[in-house]
Amino acid sequence: MSLIDALNWRYAVKKMNGQPVEQEKVDQIIQAALLAPTSSGLQPFKVIVITNQELKEKIAPIAFNQSQIIDSSHVLVFAAQENYTEEGIDEVFNRMNTERGLPLDATDAYKNQLKGMILSRSAEENFNHAAKQAYIAFGLAIAQAALLKVDSTPMEGFNAAQLDELLGLDKKQLKSVTLLPLGNRDEAGDWLAKLKKVRTPLNEFLIEFK
Amino acid sequence: MSLIDALNWRYAVKKMNGQPVEQEKVDQIIQAALLAPTSSGLQPFKVIVITNQELKEKIAPIAFNQSQIIDSSHVLVFAAQENYTEEGIDEVFNRMNTERGLPLDATDAYKNQLKGMILSRSAEENFNHAAKQAYIAFGLAIAQAALLKVDSTPMEGFNAAQLDELLGLDKKQLKSVTLLPLGNRDEAGDWLAKLKKVRTPLNEFLIEFK
Repeated sequence: MSLIDALNWRYAVKKMNGQPVEQEKVDQIIQAALLAPTSSGLQPFKVIVITNQELKEKIAPIAFNQSQIIDSSHVLVFAAQENYTEEGIDEVFNRMNTERGLPLDATDAYKNQLKGMILSRSAEENFNHAAKQAYIAFGLAIAQAALLKVDSTPMEGFNAAQLDELLGLDKKQLKSVTLLPLGNRDEAGDWLAKLKKVRTPLNEFLIEFK
Repeated sequence: MSLIDALNWRYAVKKMNGQPVEQEKVDQIIQAALLAPTSSGLQPFKVIVITNQELKEKIAPIAFNQSQIIDSSHVLVFAAQENYTEEGIDEVFNRMNTERGLPLDATDAYKNQLKGMILSRSAEENFNHAAKQAYIAFGLAIAQAALLKVDSTPMEGFNAAQLDELLGLDKKQLKSVTLLPLGNRDEAGDWLAKLKKVRTPLNEFLIEFK
């Protein structure tokens, strides 16, 4: 299936049927998120995978009781770093140079310039920047799910502070930014299943300079 | 090619060879961005496509003279709305209901709740929210390019205010957030072409609750 066909097939499923998604497919969805490009390769986010049903039942009220939290088999949480740290940046560059067989200081000029820029910004600016990187991975996870005919529901509607406390993300200096329940659509029970996908007309979406 | 293979094939190309990308492939890349899911379907961003070489030469210094601006055939600019407006939200819901053959007021309860939430936020919060939606589409465009073996370079390193003025985006209440030059890698001339792709190990990227 082409990506365009997959994106036309998918929609934000409102009702799932409780049937589980194969773990092998979930692994590929996570792999797509892991391979997402990020600013300077910093990957300032984590993916949390929740299959524990008791925990999902605690998350539901935090997410306005959206039924997909309960009726999906896996809930992915994309959580961005609260801030960048000097140690975190060092770790990324050390790993990159080690894996590439380069001296640890091979990229020091670039790294120090990057640190100067990033570490002079406010925590809020850096969290916003990290969150945007997580959204790239979120997009790739949605795409990979659709290509595998796995249903998903991209969600921003939840109380992030409550979820962070429940999952202990606050103690890891992470803040949740999006949820992605994975499951199988309940076509008969989903009011959105049969409705046409609507997008901005291409001539309004696109601005060309030829 | 699977998405995983495509994501492993791609990298942030540092040197392109000037060979053009077929327009048909560019159209599919834009289509993937158009089909990206966004919060409540609001699609609060545009994609600008620049093939005009003179204009690209003016953009290069605004993007720290990164050579891909010149040596790509198409430069995509993802530009998010400065803010949400009541009229913009109405337009989206009117189109959605019209295309679905529903009365224009079919979704008024939801729409009014959404307006209450969005229009009470600051312009800055709304711009950040809109930018994040643009990043989902940015991710899908990168994925579609890779699946078509089109090279691309995701870029945040440019002066957005200067670019917005040059392209007249400020007059359209848009702010550029990312660039994506599309072209073909110059493998011999690109220092990054042969270096291993490095990512956080999966066991550090993933947090599981079983």
